[in-house]
Amino acid sequence: MSTLSDQSTTRRGRTIISVDAMGGDMGPAAVVAGIALSAKINPDIAFILHGPRDQLERLVAKRKHLTGRCEIRDAQGVVSMSDKPSHIMRHGKDTSMWSTLDSVREGEATVAVSCGNTGALMALSMVRLRKLPGVNRPAIAVLWPSRNPQGFNVMLDVGADVRADEQDLLQYALMGVSYARNGLNLSHPRVGLLNVGTEENKGRAELKAAHELIGNMAPRANFEFVGFVEGGDIPGDVCDVIVTDGFTGNVALKTGEGTAKLIGDLLKEAFKHSPLSRLASLLALTSLRRLKHRIDPRRVNGGVFLGLNGTVVKSHGSADATGVSAAVKLAFKLAQSEFSEKLAARVASATALAHDTKTQQEDSQ
Amino acid sequence: MSTLSDQSTTRRGRTIISVDAMGGDMGPAAVVAGIALSAKINPDIAFILHGPRDQLERLVAKRKHLTGRCEIRDAQGVVSMSDKPSHIMRHGKDTSMWSTLDSVREGEATVAVSCGNTGALMALSMVRLRKLPGVNRPAIAVLWPSRNPQGFNVMLDVGADVRADEQDLLQYALMGVSYARNGLNLSHPRVGLLNVGTEENKGRAELKAAHELIGNMAPRANFEFVGFVEGGDIPGDVCDVIVTDGFTGNVALKTGEGTAKLIGDLLKEAFKHSPLSRLASLLALTSLRRLKHRIDPRRVNGGVFLGLNGTVVKSHGSADATGVSAAVKLAFKLAQSEFSEKLAARVASATALAHDTKTQQEDSQ
Repeated sequence: MSTLSDQSTTRRGRTIISVDAMGGDMGPAAVVAGIALSAKINPDIAFILHGPRDQLERLVAKRKHLTGRCEIRDAQGVVSMSDKPSHIMRHGKDTSMWSTLDSVREGEATVAVSCGNTGALMALSMVRLRKLPGVNRPAIAVLWPSRNPQGFNVMLDVGADVRADEQDLLQYALMGVSYARNGLNLSHPRVGLLNVGTEENKGRAELKAAHELIGNMAPRANFEFVGFVEGGDIPGDVCDVIVTDGFTGNVALKTGEGTAKLIGDLLKEAFKHSPLSRLASLLALTSLRRLKHRIDPRRVNGGVFLGLNGTVVKSHGSADATGVSAAVKLAFKLAQSEFSEKLAARVASATALAHDTKTQQEDSQ
Repeated sequence: MSTLSDQSTTRRGRTIISVDAMGGDMGPAAVVAGIALSAKINPDIAFILHGPRDQLERLVAKRKHLTGRCEIRDAQGVVSMSDKPSHIMRHGKDTSMWSTLDSVREGEATVAVSCGNTGALMALSMVRLRKLPGVNRPAIAVLWPSRNPQGFNVMLDVGADVRADEQDLLQYALMGVSYARNGLNLSHPRVGLLNVGTEENKGRAELKAAHELIGNMAPRANFEFVGFVEGGDIPGDVCDVIVTDGFTGNVALKTGEGTAKLIGDLLKEAFKHSPLSRLASLLALTSLRRLKHRIDPRRVNGGVFLGLNGTVVKSHGSADATGVSAAVKLAFKLAQSEFSEKLAARVASATALAHDTKTQQEDSQ
């Protein structure tokens, strides 16, 4: 099979996304259906798809929109949800996940997409893509339905690492700002630091230190710092980027998802309660669909790994074709805006700025 | 004015609740309306109400159900939402909050209720009621709408302290179990420890240590330990008591509330969208009311301070009469079940158990 680079596709300026076909709960059929959906909507996209060649060739052959736009890279190994990250780091060379990241490593694609095991994906990403100079801990950022005009806020870290010191939180702020610019088109994002109260003397020591660091950086790095925010502000409109450590962010993310799911289920029950309420639900169908669409997690499917040499979009393990397609859309948007390069430049210049400030302080002492 | 203890009320076995009339966003009128509502429903309840006598006498006189069942204790000072806890600890002697806690300290009531400043209330509670022997950090527990048959789960700590080590988390588990028994009538509560994954090797060091401590205590203290749980399990059905540190718990609580509020508002918008959806919302009114009732935060209004000599119910600052009445109902239930005494006994016996085990280990060395 010829490679994409041999074909007219790249010459026509198509953006290539590296996609892991394996490891999702719904198997490679859902992934291929998802990328076919994206290919249909978006003429400027092409794929390198990683997994067992035989299986993938059959699936891809069925999708006419993928003709000439999807190169298959054979990888027989699959990372399962129960695999330990440390095991995959040592023995995962033959897996589709490894191969997917290597396409980014080799510069064939700038963004990778996978529905697989988050822990393994992050561990492999650290090893294969390496951290950006100046980044101590990479982070996972998600989009969260909010009251802001853009409809979503960015929150990070939601689970790359269970701890973060003040320097890490500053890096998260900078990376989150970069993501909000390129992912949500916000020119001057507002950043909030998650805490248990908004007064400056609240919370843990590293938060007070981070408050100062981020506040000092804001005017020079062209964002607004609104100070401490609380859990209720994550879906709110006081800021666009919520900065927190991976432990707190992960709990908040899952609590929010669980609460939304519970309310959705209770709402369904409520509408099934009587003939009248069933009739009401029929009449309200479009309204309810509109609401569902607004908060559908599949629409914003994709945690983004930030702070690496290259961008990785982690799709939900349970993503169906719609979910995969949403993750691909995000990957495309980030690749097009040359997000990886911009983020790297931003982190590098912030590191230089911090270094300058330090040197000045040392000079003046 | 005669005191309640002079009257037939206590001889008739009424349970006395100490209530802070001041410091809530809606003022003393809402508090008096709330306790009047409780008095109307529950013939076995009586109150000691703390605040400026003139103002309270006028408000109480208007409520016939409070006649002879509400003693007023004059206190001219009010703790505001912006007062610093440290300031109130030193200069708050004349406040209604101080007076409210002192009724519990003196044994006139076993449970106190306040809508005031949480930080100040916790700080004053520590000073006036003192920690139970064996408790290092008191905790705030809340009830959370869940998929469990009882309709709610207990989560603690949600903000008494921003940190907790493994011993604190063990105490939280024991106190949470006691609360679930007495507040939710669960004879054999299931306890989960909040983490970013359910595998035993996940998360921070103190969580791994707490996992072992709580697991060892479970059979002896007559509860079930389900191990690590995630944010999504807070409104779920895998456990009844969720144990976490006050920082994480506070963020989770506010994230859940914020998400529920956002969905509620979007739902309202969705139903206003077209004439048809407005008609649908009319037809669905009872169903929607049923849903609202199920997740109405006012119904479970009241964080409970655990680990003190006496129980304090912290009502939402924005509580209206319904909210205050719900907090009073919870206070009554806890007072009736002699919760404070049972909790103290449980903590004491666990401390003894831990001590025994330690001694045995030392003996066998």
